[in-house]
Formats: sequence, structure tokens, C-alpha cells
Amino acid sequence: MSLNDPVRERIRTACEEVRQKTPLAQSFTNFVTINLVANAQLAAGGSAAMSFLPDDIKDIEAISGASYINVGTLLPSYEDALKDIAKSFFERTSLWVLDPVAAGLGSTRTRILKAFAEYPPTIVRANASEIIALCGIWDISLKTDSNGKVNRPAGVESVDDVDSATLHAIELARYLREHNATHTAAVAVSGERDLVTDGDRVYRLPGGNAMMTKITGAGCSLGGVTATYLAVSDPLTAALAASLHFNCASEQAGTVAQGPGSFQTAFLDALWQIQAAEIADSTIIDMH
Amino acid sequence: MSLNDPVRERIRTACEEVRQKTPLAQSFTNFVTINLVANAQLAAGGSAAMSFLPDDIKDIEAISGASYINVGTLLPSYEDALKDIAKSFFERTSLWVLDPVAAGLGSTRTRILKAFAEYPPTIVRANASEIIALCGIWDISLKTDSNGKVNRPAGVESVDDVDSATLHAIELARYLREHNATHTAAVAVSGERDLVTDGDRVYRLPGGNAMMTKITGAGCSLGGVTATYLAVSDPLTAALAASLHFNCASEQAGTVAQGPGSFQTAFLDALWQIQAAEIADSTIIDMH
Amino acid sequence: MSLNDPVRERIRTACEEVRQKTPLAQSFTNFVTINLVANAQLAAGGSAAMSFLPDDIKDIEAISGASYINVGTLLPSYEDALKDIAKSFFERTSLWVLDPVAAGLGSTRTRILKAFAEYPPTIVRANASEIIALCGIWDISLKTDSNGKVNRPAGVESVDDVDSATLHAIELARYLREHNATHTAAVAVSGERDLVTDGDRVYRLPGGNAMMTKITGAGCSLGGVTATYLAVSDPLTAALAASLHFNCASEQAGTVAQGPGSFQTAFLDALWQIQAAEIADSTIIDMH
Repeated sequence: MSLNDPVRERIRTACEEVRQKTPLAQSFTNFVTINLVANAQLAAGGSAAMSFLPDDIKDIEAISGASYINVGTLLPSYEDALKDIAKSFFERTSLWVLDPVAAGLGSTRTRILKAFAEYPPTIVRANASEIIALCGIWDISLKTDSNGKVNRPAGVESVDDVDSATLHAIELARYLREHNATHTAAVAVSGERDLVTDGDRVYRLPGGNAMMTKITGAGCSLGGVTATYLAVSDPLTAALAASLHFNCASEQAGTVAQGPGSFQTAFLDALWQIQAAEIADSTIIDMH
Repeated sequence: MSLNDPVRERIRTACEEVRQKTPLAQSFTNFVTINLVANAQLAAGGSAAMSFLPDDIKDIEAISGASYINVGTLLPSYEDALKDIAKSFFERTSLWVLDPVAAGLGSTRTRILKAFAEYPPTIVRANASEIIALCGIWDISLKTDSNGKVNRPAGVESVDDVDSATLHAIELARYLREHNATHTAAVAVSGERDLVTDGDRVYRLPGGNAMMTKITGAGCSLGGVTATYLAVSDPLTAALAASLHFNCASEQAGTVAQGPGSFQTAFLDALWQIQAAEIADSTIIDMH
Repeated sequence: MSLNDPVRERIRTACEEVRQKTPLAQSFTNFVTINLVANAQLAAGGSAAMSFLPDDIKDIEAISGASYINVGTLLPSYEDALKDIAKSFFERTSLWVLDPVAAGLGSTRTRILKAFAEYPPTIVRANASEIIALCGIWDISLKTDSNGKVNRPAGVESVDDVDSATLHAIELARYLREHNATHTAAVAVSGERDLVTDGDRVYRLPGGNAMMTKITGAGCSLGGVTATYLAVSDPLTAALAASLHFNCASEQAGTVAQGPGSFQTAFLDALWQIQAAEIADSTIIDMH
């Protein structure tokens, strides 16, 4: 993509606005990485609030620019709570990001994700296996023939590469915008070369650093920061800006880290330090 | 305050005793920052134990010098549990610190905080908005006319400055000492210049570093370390010593940090390294 | 132990296999240190997944090499869930590691641990007080006369030294291998000089760094990494390799740390960097 493409201008503006407005994006997220989600949102320039009760979430929704739901570690009370929350977001036309962590594993998770089909999010951010599994749970069929492989996640790590989820991501984005409250949507597939699509255009982001797979919560915190960006911009710009912000910060962290401990520290520092122009000028491959 | 004020001697002694006795202060706290609460207590010189079950809390109370309750992330089971625990602390005349995170948001949180009115803590530590909201929930009216503004928290961040909560903090401290089990109390209001009061005297602590607002859990972990100090000293000394310890450590961290990641690392190092004399000799403004 | 003892060869192979195979070890663990458990497993070379629902755990068991249960912070739903999970592990002859955090405190925890007596784990990793308390809960009596002292844990820290739990550890390992599904077992007692036994041989590991007691989760994350090693090796080798890997990494971290913050960062870096040969060549004292 050329350096003067209008998409880049929207990304730059989004980065600047996050730093100027410190937008609040609330999260209902897993216990493993909840701290990193909040710290990444703060380091990216936003503000954070976390809750697990519908009454809390609804109150905080009123003062949040966007919300984030991550189904990583579930408790019995979540099944009713999350259905109630998704319905409430729908009725208030709230913007929200879903991370369907480990989609396809566990009957409770499957029921929760199934319930979201009726009240879908604005953005789904996930790895390739989760995107493919979510399409299965929501009965989203591919217009183009796929290779017929049945994909099953290997725990919380993807067993599929980003390429293999391209068609699923496109169809998923179309499903989201058709069925969600705002009729705008994006899907972000994280992996070696992230993919972002709004259902029409497909972008690939080749940056980043492999050490991101050696700290827990790289994907979860990207979901949270995507919600931070969604509070100030359209879904496609939010998904692109958050992914690029993460890729730039992870590249910078990779130049100084001695291992995963110092990598996480340097990554949070880099999220904070990195300039909007650097994020907006990253390599973006416009696929069509 | 002069360098030979007796308050400073009590602060110095408290800091030294925490390092010598490694006092246990247990916590019932939120999932976002529970790790930082424990690590800050350890780095300050204390010992940590976390639990969410009344039977656990009551057993651990017997071996704890003080306890800490933080209502940040609530689960359905907490409403009965926390009422039971507060009542039990009251009956055993246990010392405890309350952080009323996001007071005013969510009906469950409001009911939990309301229930504490009957069995109030020894110390409340919060931001200005939460102090004002808690006074509202507990029907504490100001003796002096306030400006009549209705304050509402903006998520978990304060929308009010510390000054505006001065009268609320004084009245809240008086309420605590009148109604709690030990009839001694303090209130600490965190912000740009922290305020600590026992209901009679008011102290302002101008130190600290703004980067503390860019890591999640600065306030939560201060509540935990306040409980650590409460295990070895009176409430006013505990609130002052913990806040000064945090301010000194955050100032020291600010001199080396490159961003919020390295700031948190350096902050924990500084909590550990900083000398009792340095903490006790910090600037303290005695308001009256 | 001589440098060409066959035990060392098994340890070296285990370390190399963890790095080559990135084995998944799932965890049901406490909220305080869940992030460090996952990050330590990743830094040691493994893969992590965390859950609290039986349906999740059973699905993930099918793709995990081993599992880890840590009873640190309990919720009401855990009592039934953990009994169900332990029974399911037994029926599937799954390998799993138990960390009986704070054994002896809280009636719910005691009931949960008691239920495990029927379906015991492959490995127990704990501090001395917890090992002694667990023997009491499981009615494991010592063949050799002990000194008759009644031990009670001081919160989550051990009040007993490793020596005093030697006989308990041996009897506990024998109990495990007699009653668990695979009839192989090990017990690891963490402390100043870690002890590892399979019920016959007893090894002491004199390495490590005292700063490990000033970060929360050193023991919890060792339990998680023990499960990572159990996914590729026999219980005795797994317990030895994980403890030695931790000791080597903590020694290396101790040479650069300025306090507990930088210690944890350096510790994770060292877990990642340290070579299999260095781990396998550590001092191991073969007691008999």
C-alpha cells in the first residue's frame, strides 16, 4: 500500500486520538492475561476497566467507547451473564470486540459462542483456528469451496496458518456486518502475517516478532487494544491500527529483549513510546 | 512538617518493623491486579495470602496482622461472602483496609458497599471520586456545605481531584472510627497530591510520579501495602507510611523507566530497596 | 551425584524434549499467579492453557501431555469441579501435578484435598508445611517415628524446613504410586534446599536464590513447569528437571537483579536462555 493511501491517514488519526482522548474500553476477559490486557490498553494510550457482572458491564458501557469480551477462562456464572451482556450491547448498539479464545473446546464455551450469533460483535480478533471454529459454530459456510479439512484447535494455540483462514475471515466479517447492531465490522486474524478484513478488502500485515508467542496474552491484549481503538474509529481502522501498533512495538521490543521476561517489559514500553506516524507508515499489503 | 515531628518517627518505626517482622496481610481483591498486590506487599517487606472464601479468610485472619478487601472485579458469590467476612472481622475486632474500587457503579457493588456500613473497615483507601461516592452510599453528610455537585465516577479512574474530597475524607474517617470495631481509623485519598486523615488532622503528600496512572493496580497495590503497614502500626501511621513508601518508590522508578513496562519493574525494585529513613523524611504537609 | 549418573542423562533429555516438542500442560490454578505459571511454562519451552470448567479440562486433557491443579484461590464452584476433574484424570490415566497451596487452611480446601485421596496425582509439589498437612489430610502415617509435633501452616508460607518433611515426602510418594492411575510418582518439597523423592531414592538440590521468596508464584509456577516436564518424562525426572531448571534460572537472575521486579524479569529470561546441559550438570545430592 502506498504511503499516501487514505487508510494510513485514518490509522494515524486513530493513534493520535487514542493518546489525546484516553478512551475507556471495558473488558470481560480471562484471568490469565487480564493484567496484561489492562496494561497494554494503558500503554497504548487508553483507559481500562474490567468486570464480570452484567449490572457492572451495563453501567460501565454507558461511559465506555467500546467493550471487549474474551472467553478464555470461563466460570459457571458466565453462560447467562455473557448472553445477557451481548444482548444488552445489541440493544444499545454498542461497539464491541470478541476474542473467541479456544473456540471449539468445551461445551460451555461452544454454547456461549453460539449465543453470540444472534447478537454478534463489531470485531472478531482471533487466531486462524479460532476463526475457522467460530465459523463452524455460527454455521457460516464459505462461498468458495474450501479444501474440506476439519480443523480442531490445539488448545489455545492455532494449528492453522493465517492463509488457510482467509475465506473464513471474509465471510465472518460479512456475517458480522449483516447481523450486528451497527452494520459495520472487521475481522483480524493474528499469526505470522496478520490479516485484517472488513468483508470486502483484505490487508496483510507482515511485521511483528516471534517472541510474541512466548509471552502469554499477546492475542488477548491485542483484542483489548483493538477495543481501545474501536472507541475512536471505524472497525477496519481500529483492527488495522491496533495490529500495527502491536507489530511495531513487538519489533522494537525484539531489538532489546534477552528473553520473554524482558521482552514483555520492552513491549509495554514500546507501546507507550511508539509514534503514530511510525504505526501508520508500517508495511501494509493490500490483497484486493 | 518538621523533620523531628513525632509522626515521622512512627512512620520510620513502621517501615523498619515491616521489614523485620514480614507481617502477613491477607487480601480479597480483584483479578486484574491481584498479582501486583501480592508482589508489592512482598517488595515492601510483608507477606501475602489471597482468598475468596469466607472459611479461608476466617482461618487466615487468625494468622494475619490485617486484611484487605478490594471490590474491583465482583462475582455473584461475593455478595454474601463479603457481608459475612466484614461481619466476622467486626466480631473479632480485626483490622482491615477497604478499597471501594468503582464505588457508585453497578448495583451489586453498591449493595456490597452498603452492607459494609454496619461493619466498617479500619482504613478506606481510594481515589477522590470513590471517597465521595462511598460517603453517598453510606449516607454520610458533610458538616460543612459542599458545592452541591453530584459526582459520578468515570469507570475506575477518578474524575474529581483530591481537594474536592477533603471534607468527605474527614467525615468518612470520623464515621469509621465511630462505627468500626477498634474505634481507630484513617482515610487515604490517592491522587496528584495524596491526602491522609484520621478525622482530625489532615496531611497532604506531594510526592509520586504520574507514570503510576499508566500501570494498572497502583491504587489496588497501595491498599494492600496499607494493610501490610496496618499489621504493625496505628491506622494513621499505616496510611501515611504506605503512601509515602509508594511515592518514594514511584519517584525513584521514574528516574530510570523508559515506559510503563520498565516503570513497574523499577517500582517493585524501589519498594524493596528504599530505606525507612528516606520514607520517613519525605515531604509531608500538615494542613491543620 | 557424579556427572555421568544416568539420572542426569534423563534430565538433559527431558530439557531438550521440552524445547523441541513445546508440550502442552493445562492448568487449573490460582488467580494470583496464573499469569506467571503460563509465562514460566512458555519460557521453559512448553505451552500453556488454563481453565476452571470440567468440560473444558476434559477436552483439553485429550491434547495435553499433563495437567496441573493448584488449590490456591478457591471459588464455591470448585469443590464439585475439582472432584469431577480428578476422577476423570484417574479414569483416563492422565498424568497430573498437584500443588496443595495452604493445605490445612479453610474447610473447603480441606474437603477438596481430601477428595483427591481417592484419585491422587502423579506428582505433589509443595513446601514442607503443605506436604506435612497433606499427609495429615490423607491419613498417611509415618513408618518411622516423627517427633510428634503438630504442624500448622502460616498462611501460604512454610513454617517448617525441608528436612522436617523428609519422611512425610517419602511416605507421600509411596502413597501416590500405590493409589494413582499410573503407579509412578514423585514428590518435590521446595525450600532452601529442595527435596525430590520417588518414595525410594531421595535427592536434595542445594541451588537457587532467596529472592525467589520475594516474588509471588515461585512455587506455583514451578508446579506448572513440573507438569510441562511430566508431559515428556517420568515423574522423578520431571520433578528433578523442573526444580533444577528453576534453581539455575533463579541463580542467574540473582546475578543481575536490583530487586524483586527485575528479578522476575531476569528469571523468565533465564528460564528461556539456560541450556539443558547446565541444568543437568547442577549439583544434586543423592541421599540414599
